[in-house]
Amino acid sequence: MLASSPANPQPPAETLTVMGAGLVGCLLALYLARHGHSVELFERRPDIRGEAKVEARSINLALSDRGWKALEGVGIAEAVREVAIAMNGRMMHGTDGQLTFQPYGQDGQAIYSVSRAGLNRRMLDLVEQQPGIRVQFDQHCQRVDLRRKQLEMRDETTGEARIQPFQRLFGADGAYSAVRGAMQRTDRFNYSQQYLDYGYKELTIAAGPKGSWPLEKHALHIWPRGQYMMIALPNLDGSFNCTLFFPYEGANSFAALQTPAQVRSFFAEHFADALPLMPELETEFFANPTSSLVTVRCFPWSHADDVLLLGDASHAIVPFYGQGMNSGFEDCAVLAELLGEHGSDWPRIMRRFETMRKPNTDAMADLAVYNFYEMRDRVADPRFLLQKKIEGKLAAQYPAQWLPLYSQVTFSQIPYAEALANGQAQEQVMQRLMPHIQAEADYERPEVQALVAAEMARRS
Amino acid sequence: MLASSPANPQPPAETLTVMGAGLVGCLLALYLARHGHSVELFERRPDIRGEAKVEARSINLALSDRGWKALEGVGIAEAVREVAIAMNGRMMHGTDGQLTFQPYGQDGQAIYSVSRAGLNRRMLDLVEQQPGIRVQFDQHCQRVDLRRKQLEMRDETTGEARIQPFQRLFGADGAYSAVRGAMQRTDRFNYSQQYLDYGYKELTIAAGPKGSWPLEKHALHIWPRGQYMMIALPNLDGSFNCTLFFPYEGANSFAALQTPAQVRSFFAEHFADALPLMPELETEFFANPTSSLVTVRCFPWSHADDVLLLGDASHAIVPFYGQGMNSGFEDCAVLAELLGEHGSDWPRIMRRFETMRKPNTDAMADLAVYNFYEMRDRVADPRFLLQKKIEGKLAAQYPAQWLPLYSQVTFSQIPYAEALANGQAQEQVMQRLMPHIQAEADYERPEVQALVAAEMARRS
Repeated sequence: MLASSPANPQPPAETLTVMGAGLVGCLLALYLARHGHSVELFERRPDIRGEAKVEARSINLALSDRGWKALEGVGIAEAVREVAIAMNGRMMHGTDGQLTFQPYGQDGQAIYSVSRAGLNRRMLDLVEQQPGIRVQFDQHCQRVDLRRKQLEMRDETTGEARIQPFQRLFGADGAYSAVRGAMQRTDRFNYSQQYLDYGYKELTIAAGPKGSWPLEKHALHIWPRGQYMMIALPNLDGSFNCTLFFPYEGANSFAALQTPAQVRSFFAEHFADALPLMPELETEFFANPTSSLVTVRCFPWSHADDVLLLGDASHAIVPFYGQGMNSGFEDCAVLAELLGEHGSDWPRIMRRFETMRKPNTDAMADLAVYNFYEMRDRVADPRFLLQKKIEGKLAAQYPAQWLPLYSQVTFSQIPYAEALANGQAQEQVMQRLMPHIQAEADYERPEVQALVAAEMARRS
Repeated sequence: MLASSPANPQPPAETLTVMGAGLVGCLLALYLARHGHSVELFERRPDIRGEAKVEARSINLALSDRGWKALEGVGIAEAVREVAIAMNGRMMHGTDGQLTFQPYGQDGQAIYSVSRAGLNRRMLDLVEQQPGIRVQFDQHCQRVDLRRKQLEMRDETTGEARIQPFQRLFGADGAYSAVRGAMQRTDRFNYSQQYLDYGYKELTIAAGPKGSWPLEKHALHIWPRGQYMMIALPNLDGSFNCTLFFPYEGANSFAALQTPAQVRSFFAEHFADALPLMPELETEFFANPTSSLVTVRCFPWSHADDVLLLGDASHAIVPFYGQGMNSGFEDCAVLAELLGEHGSDWPRIMRRFETMRKPNTDAMADLAVYNFYEMRDRVADPRFLLQKKIEGKLAAQYPAQWLPLYSQVTFSQIPYAEALANGQAQEQVMQRLMPHIQAEADYERPEVQALVAAEMARRS
């Protein structure tokens, strides 16, 4: 047994095992410990705070309100905010280099660019300072025996294998979860993994002179090109992490770009304004892996009242709404609320958690795929851009009746399933209004205003 | 190398490995051998023709036109027909014991009740007589190494493990396929397994005196009861194999029937006419397993041009349309056609097979789930029964324009996806007609006949 925290005088009833010390695993461990539990936290990889640079890729994530709220729940939001960069909108880069800025929300609302590795390091520091948590690295879970409640663990530094019993197990071990793998072999476990025909590759826009940002710092940059796109998120050092989302096969695809010259020529044609900012382009293009884009769904998320999946392990989504980490963090906050309500009644907590949460993460999975098509195809379409502007006017004129879908997902705690349903109803309204609108100014025309007023009366 | 068949003088280019000597694996091996290939056929279980009674359950299957056509393709349909019992329609058993017969098709069309084990035994006999096939039993495939093209096999009789290389591998190893399991761990393999909240249990209606049939022999019997149902298929010895499809949880469910007295009382209330015919009911109910009902979908079905999935391994479906075996057999016939067209151009054959076949087996999976709800809920609904009768009249009056969906699936070779689309269009027609029809005789009314004629004109 671990020493219990002096701040939590009640003796912990049992040790909880968390698989995975990534972002969700760390946050979950913190929440569980703050509720007075002893936590064993296992991570397959080495400690990423070590001397050796262990991660191959430097990924940026977009923290938004749900993520912030969950971080606040364990009092670590301020520490994270210091290393986050506000992005107040999308900056679209046309083929001709023309820039168009779309603010994300009202009143300077923003999403925040953070480094996955940097955030994970900071959370590991907090985990290690937290009494009641013991974290162990290089622990490869090779098999989960659900019936015997045992883990077959291998220490990757010594090669030593051992049997590790568990009392209650939380799988926060990501999209390729070992815990879920064991549950998948039980009867009546619903499961799906669906890939897009697109892969992604991480690239870099270099910092400007003296660590300045060569593009607008406070924006998420998008180069929408119909069948593919590139995005870029700012780093603290003046550089940007870029991600190219690109078909695996076809005329413009990973398969079609086989030489450094082909890559350069492709970027010169389609991403002309970015190319001069990417001195390592050809090297990175062939050195960095091409990664796939998967949506994972499953149910149930619990097994026999003593195993529970959270985060990507239960609902991996594609990254196009910036909600992968945020939804995993929200899982932790929702679970913590249930801990507050039901104490250690784990059967009830697990049942309520999975039934409350599943419709919401399913909705988020759909929204993320949908946003891929929107970002790729529609943000370059003048009618779509006009519709977005009209929606902005609607939201400004009727703030109580009209919160744009993106804001519901990103800047509110409205359950994802409700946000999706609201968004679908809003889209129907727009489909009725847009035939009457050919330009931004048309919104003010009396007949359009009458239509808008009628729609709003119907909604309230 | 195996000796090549004198009937196939061209030397086989390579040995093909088929995993699974169930119904689909046997038929596939026969087709491949008839095309001049050497075949290694591996089966995990012991030879079911042996002395020991190895299968726990005696399942009946309904062979229909697609299955027959595929059996004819290797000349074994007549041998199978000798042990099959024609079922010319559904016999519905009301709660009050009232019987209603619905013929399946025109002109005495029938589906055929066959014993899975009996059919498998007969096919194994044919496989062993076929030059060019070597079948081995008790061969448990523990791992498939797709990269090295090796199988880790364990001989279940000796416990001996060995590495078995393969050149080209066909996974006909069922819903829990080991071959598919290996493919599932490759990147970008789409996969889903979805369970119904229902299980099933096999039960028996005993033969009457001197091997007579205590119920109509030439029918598939159904006891539809809203939230659950029982079906029965005839055996050659006068008995019937029954299957109870029942919720796992709830008021009337497997969970609710915990004692022999509860089972008897439940059957006495809901299956009163069957109960006296089931002397072993209580024993069987607790001795036989409760099995789950899964739909498996995946894509691609091939890997690196040298591995291919067929049958339940690529598209396991629920049993409610009687098409599981038939669709697997049709896979073999479709593959054989491609072999005829493209010889040994396996990359092309595999690509065409999976792209042609996938939309059809997806449609069949949807139809099977849909038919569950139809059989369970709607066959006891007077309006639905009336609609079915009107559809029968339509089909008789306009045979060129109206083949009922059930007939398209069961008594034709129309691709499943086309059948599903046709069926949906027909259902829309019925939705327009039925408000004008309150009784069977209304079909003859001039205004209804005018509506029908207009619909038919639109369709042709």
